[in-house]
Amino acid sequence: MLKQYRTRLNEKHPLIHCITNYVTVNDVANILLASGASPVMADEPKEVAEITAASAGLTLNLGTLNQTSLTAMLVAGKKANQLGHPIVFDPVALGASTLRTQATKQILQQLQLTVIRGNSSEIRALISGAGQVKGVDAVPADQITPQNQFQFVTAAKRFCRQHQVILVITGETDLIVSANRVATINNGTAMMANITGAGCMLTALLTAYMAVAQDNGFMAAVAAVCHMGLAGQKAEQKRLHYSAGNASFRNYLIDAIGQLNGANLDQEAIYEIDEN
Amino acid sequence: MLKQYRTRLNEKHPLIHCITNYVTVNDVANILLASGASPVMADEPKEVAEITAASAGLTLNLGTLNQTSLTAMLVAGKKANQLGHPIVFDPVALGASTLRTQATKQILQQLQLTVIRGNSSEIRALISGAGQVKGVDAVPADQITPQNQFQFVTAAKRFCRQHQVILVITGETDLIVSANRVATINNGTAMMANITGAGCMLTALLTAYMAVAQDNGFMAAVAAVCHMGLAGQKAEQKRLHYSAGNASFRNYLIDAIGQLNGANLDQEAIYEIDEN
Amino acid sequence: MLKQYRTRLNEKHPLIHCITNYVTVNDVANILLASGASPVMADEPKEVAEITAASAGLTLNLGTLNQTSLTAMLVAGKKANQLGHPIVFDPVALGASTLRTQATKQILQQLQLTVIRGNSSEIRALISGAGQVKGVDAVPADQITPQNQFQFVTAAKRFCRQHQVILVITGETDLIVSANRVATINNGTAMMANITGAGCMLTALLTAYMAVAQDNGFMAAVAAVCHMGLAGQKAEQKRLHYSAGNASFRNYLIDAIGQLNGANLDQEAIYEIDEN
Repeated sequence: MLKQYRTRLNEKHPLIHCITNYVTVNDVANILLASGASPVMADEPKEVAEITAASAGLTLNLGTLNQTSLTAMLVAGKKANQLGHPIVFDPVALGASTLRTQATKQILQQLQLTVIRGNSSEIRALISGAGQVKGVDAVPADQITPQNQFQFVTAAKRFCRQHQVILVITGETDLIVSANRVATINNGTAMMANITGAGCMLTALLTAYMAVAQDNGFMAAVAAVCHMGLAGQKAEQKRLHYSAGNASFRNYLIDAIGQLNGANLDQEAIYEIDEN
Repeated sequence: MLKQYRTRLNEKHPLIHCITNYVTVNDVANILLASGASPVMADEPKEVAEITAASAGLTLNLGTLNQTSLTAMLVAGKKANQLGHPIVFDPVALGASTLRTQATKQILQQLQLTVIRGNSSEIRALISGAGQVKGVDAVPADQITPQNQFQFVTAAKRFCRQHQVILVITGETDLIVSANRVATINNGTAMMANITGAGCMLTALLTAYMAVAQDNGFMAAVAAVCHMGLAGQKAEQKRLHYSAGNASFRNYLIDAIGQLNGANLDQEAIYEIDEN
Repeated sequence: MLKQYRTRLNEKHPLIHCITNYVTVNDVANILLASGASPVMADEPKEVAEITAASAGLTLNLGTLNQTSLTAMLVAGKKANQLGHPIVFDPVALGASTLRTQATKQILQQLQLTVIRGNSSEIRALISGAGQVKGVDAVPADQITPQNQFQFVTAAKRFCRQHQVILVITGETDLIVSANRVATINNGTAMMANITGAGCMLTALLTAYMAVAQDNGFMAAVAAVCHMGLAGQKAEQKRLHYSAGNASFRNYLIDAIGQLNGANLDQEAIYEIDEN
């Protein structure tokens, strides 16, 4: 099931245009290369339409947002929509500033997004304005628990219907929500939270998978999240073996993205899908 | 003595707002995470006051200064002062351009800084305008020696009194100077000079320590500098063990920041403090 | 032959001013440090002339070009020309946007460049406007083959004569072309294409070598390209030994730049030079 998407990445090498933050951009580029995709980073409003036109997918990441990069995101996004390219949006630290709230509003109003990925605080802020964002990490109060999951998923599905988008909510358990489906994914490692950029990297990887999703964006998103989670587990084993820390883990994680093939995904991914 | 600061970092996870350069920003984020702190990078003037308000400390780093980021530094700095958050300032390559000299003047005039960290050239330029800055590294003529140390420290103490600030001067021996105390620290490794960002990383780490310093900023600064120096030694041992080079050393250094606990600091730190 | 340039890097520690992209800038800084050179990154138009004046060479890289950084490149370039400092230009993704074509035109018209480095697509776009650039990587149709090499080299030599510049074209085989010489270099590894920044790093390394080239820029360029290629081979051996991936390879590559000395270059470099 998941194998085909992974395999297609290595065959098609989709070019992914990233308008992303300068903190984790190098890791984002290297994880795309590891996956079989090819990265191009460009954020000058004057050229982004041309760069997007030559690409197969667009990543928009609010990490180190500024007014110029917001303009670039809107210009590139409109071109991507016009050409039918997938757009994956990462509302980093949404709720932490008025600028991020307003930027997200503009992006949602002017662009048709394919996937939005965030942690539970960011996605709560997105759906309801109720997230208590503290910097770039989810706060405990926003975590999804067995108690609040039904309510959260119901609101998420409504958002997906309104915006014709897939939501990817990452955390201890990852959720992928569409208008009528929910995938619950249990790969990954707590170590992900001890490096910068795990979220940004997954957002870019999701874009690559969307570029080869053909008619099934939801399953391509499942494949991307499982790919990332399994790579995290593999990297964590290596980190423990070498008694290493978070910087080494980051390298092992990117390495593992390249080393996991489609068969690994099908055999090792732990996920469930609820229809309707 | 030093243990409490290290321990508190892991308990409180202070959020550190960094307005820093795009060269070493990823390492800065990962070293903060390794230490137990949490990073948030944002430099758009429109949002930095909100980001700072939600944080526990502010890093200002001149590395790849531009006019917009200078504005952001002043806006964020005023908010931090208003809220009583510590500010750690890194005058990278001070003396290398008129812009950096003027920016530093504005920062000193408009903001109450908590700590300033630089190499001996940068701190000489700061105190007296006499540093011969060549790029981002200290020049031999500016190094602190047994012959010139008394004079240098006297001038540094005067600066600390005038500006109510702590100076951290890094080099073969690290000095921490306040109005009436001098700490001399002899951890570290020469390998630090062979990677980019050792200074920037320490500046961010100092901010994290200041955010949990409670009533003793001077000792928290000693703890931060010892933490970095001991991590450097540990990383250098690992580098030699694997016959590796500077890029691997950088990873081992960040790893080691996470692996050193408070007990290690108390047992292994080599420092002396002279009062008055 | 090549040894002297490598040795001189370690003796002179030339300061290299880089106006480069934010994707690979950290790797660029660390590879310069590994080589013995010293990096300084600054792109604010107000200060770049001063930074260049204090440096020994200038790297201009179009990676994440914007209008401000283009201004900075022209200002810094004019100062470098005035002082006789070498300039190495990397027209990243030339042909992918009108902005990049226009920027390259302005740079060629206003500055005397020393070396231009690119992949075969970028250099074809530079010489003839015929490159089919897809993102930042060369497309198969632009590759240099035994069949098209004569024609390509003839056009490249003409360009070198017109612009008094050396061209470095990297790929499976690397070519260095001047008005009357061609070096063919067969070091390196295919793994280079699986990380971001191999090109950017070589461009910066070429600048460092140009800064110590004395009267023979062509041979200094040969030395730089051989240094990079041999480091790639060494890194690839280590990667295979550890069953690692592209992120680890990147670290090993930078490590290896520091570990290769002049004698290694003379003994292990595989190249041929055709005069006339």
